[in-house]
Amino acid sequence: MSVQFERVALIGLGLIGSSLAHIMRREKIAAHITGFAKSEATRKTAVQLGLVDSIHATAFSAVKDADLVILCVPVGACGAIAKEIGAALKPGCIVTDVGSVKAAVVRDVAPHLPAGVHFVPGHPIAGTEQSGPASGFADLFLKRWCILTPLPDSDAAAVTRLEKFWHSCGSYVDQMTPEHHDLVLAITSHLPHLIAYNTVATAADLEEVTDSEVIKYSAGGFRDFTRIAASDPTMWRDVFLNNREAVLEMLGRFSEDLSALQRAIRWGDGETLFNLFTRAREVRRNIIAAGQETAAPDFGRDPKHR
Amino acid sequence: MSVQFERVALIGLGLIGSSLAHIMRREKIAAHITGFAKSEATRKTAVQLGLVDSIHATAFSAVKDADLVILCVPVGACGAIAKEIGAALKPGCIVTDVGSVKAAVVRDVAPHLPAGVHFVPGHPIAGTEQSGPASGFADLFLKRWCILTPLPDSDAAAVTRLEKFWHSCGSYVDQMTPEHHDLVLAITSHLPHLIAYNTVATAADLEEVTDSEVIKYSAGGFRDFTRIAASDPTMWRDVFLNNREAVLEMLGRFSEDLSALQRAIRWGDGETLFNLFTRAREVRRNIIAAGQETAAPDFGRDPKHR
Repeated sequence: MSVQFERVALIGLGLIGSSLAHIMRREKIAAHITGFAKSEATRKTAVQLGLVDSIHATAFSAVKDADLVILCVPVGACGAIAKEIGAALKPGCIVTDVGSVKAAVVRDVAPHLPAGVHFVPGHPIAGTEQSGPASGFADLFLKRWCILTPLPDSDAAAVTRLEKFWHSCGSYVDQMTPEHHDLVLAITSHLPHLIAYNTVATAADLEEVTDSEVIKYSAGGFRDFTRIAASDPTMWRDVFLNNREAVLEMLGRFSEDLSALQRAIRWGDGETLFNLFTRAREVRRNIIAAGQETAAPDFGRDPKHR
Repeated sequence: MSVQFERVALIGLGLIGSSLAHIMRREKIAAHITGFAKSEATRKTAVQLGLVDSIHATAFSAVKDADLVILCVPVGACGAIAKEIGAALKPGCIVTDVGSVKAAVVRDVAPHLPAGVHFVPGHPIAGTEQSGPASGFADLFLKRWCILTPLPDSDAAAVTRLEKFWHSCGSYVDQMTPEHHDLVLAITSHLPHLIAYNTVATAADLEEVTDSEVIKYSAGGFRDFTRIAASDPTMWRDVFLNNREAVLEMLGRFSEDLSALQRAIRWGDGETLFNLFTRAREVRRNIIAAGQETAAPDFGRDPKHR
């Protein structure tokens, strides 16, 4: 790969920011990577791991002369960062982000960016339950989808450059409106996380079943839920606060459907249960066929953890 | 290992039955393994794979002269099988099962077993989302817990022999009452499966988001839910029909907790969300420390499926 950007600024160096640093290094996408992290410990680790060429204690200083600025902070922090960096951005610079919510980011970020700066919101659908600058790795985005949500006045050339950037990271790229993105992610990501968090909390609060029993017998299914419930709490708080309407809509449908299932159990309606359970297998088969999931039993877990 | 049972009958040759065949072969636990499966295709596969020494088209014939009979059929089928085999069981024979519900199995099976036959209900907390005679493997039970729920009049020597059997399969063994088992499994296994099935159904029924979008962007969390929702529909229908009270109790608590979360989202109560999300991480750490889960990110999924 040839250099696509002379100077890329990573604002935030958690799982996504550090993974972007790794893949940009490996594919030689950027000539110089600058980094900003709020915490001194994160900045130190980033330097030790060689993630960045220069580290900065303010986002303002990190974005100076950058051709591409990637906001890799929780969604709720994007507005304040945009306000801070607005005046430091080079004309022609592309600003993007990786947030799990798009309409709120557009609302919070766009007003602070000067004319001549190209804002193209984005969201790579990739991650693990790990957080922090040491959790990143180059292949995080491999064969994952990245959704760009260009605005009506987004510069077409900037969108094309950003598409090429994500292709170089190993991703597939799609485009849609911020509003549709937020609806799609509400069901494929936000609702599952909320449900997982809630299941773990319900289990932890029982009086009749001890925490130690929940832990010992978690291989029956519960432990699967704890993976996504181990994701970064700040990031997820911000997702729910900033995609409220879509999440509440999906939650309403989920609860309706759950009431119907509950009724089927109470009245011993085995046929309803069987038919619903049978449909679910098909969905997984399709996800595997689409290359978005492993076909190995138990996610390919180590045999001693099956 | 030395032979523990001269003749073991596997009634049902799905994931659990075939896995038991593999581990009994490897550890030389049984001198002769007989097998019964309802479907001719399953019987054929079992013979082709060398799972059993003799295959039978009726459970009655399979259990003849057996020292250990293991019911590996869906919970709802146990009663009829017990009725069928009662008169064929050898005095002194041990009968056990592997069902995910225990009180209902005791209710359905015990009345059909003659005096002099030892009934010790059991449940290995192990499995994958795969089903059928070809899905089994010897290490399925390795480092997993098997719960025995002896009855007040269960023969102590029979319980001890069965404990030894499960230890030879690589399992840890615990004992509790059938009723407590059903409560514990309702939260660690039955509720998670129900929630997963429901989430998949809710996603499949949306009008605003296409099935193809749900599939493409499932790496955001949704795909984790599809694994346990791909489990055998008959087995799971029977679980819910036979552990109704405990499942409804856990479902009630889950829904209460979810309403509180929903309210926090509606009113923008970030602190409540953050605190709840923070607690959940700890639970996963404890499951990993207890050796019941892998510490590898994303369950150790193949890198291209992270």
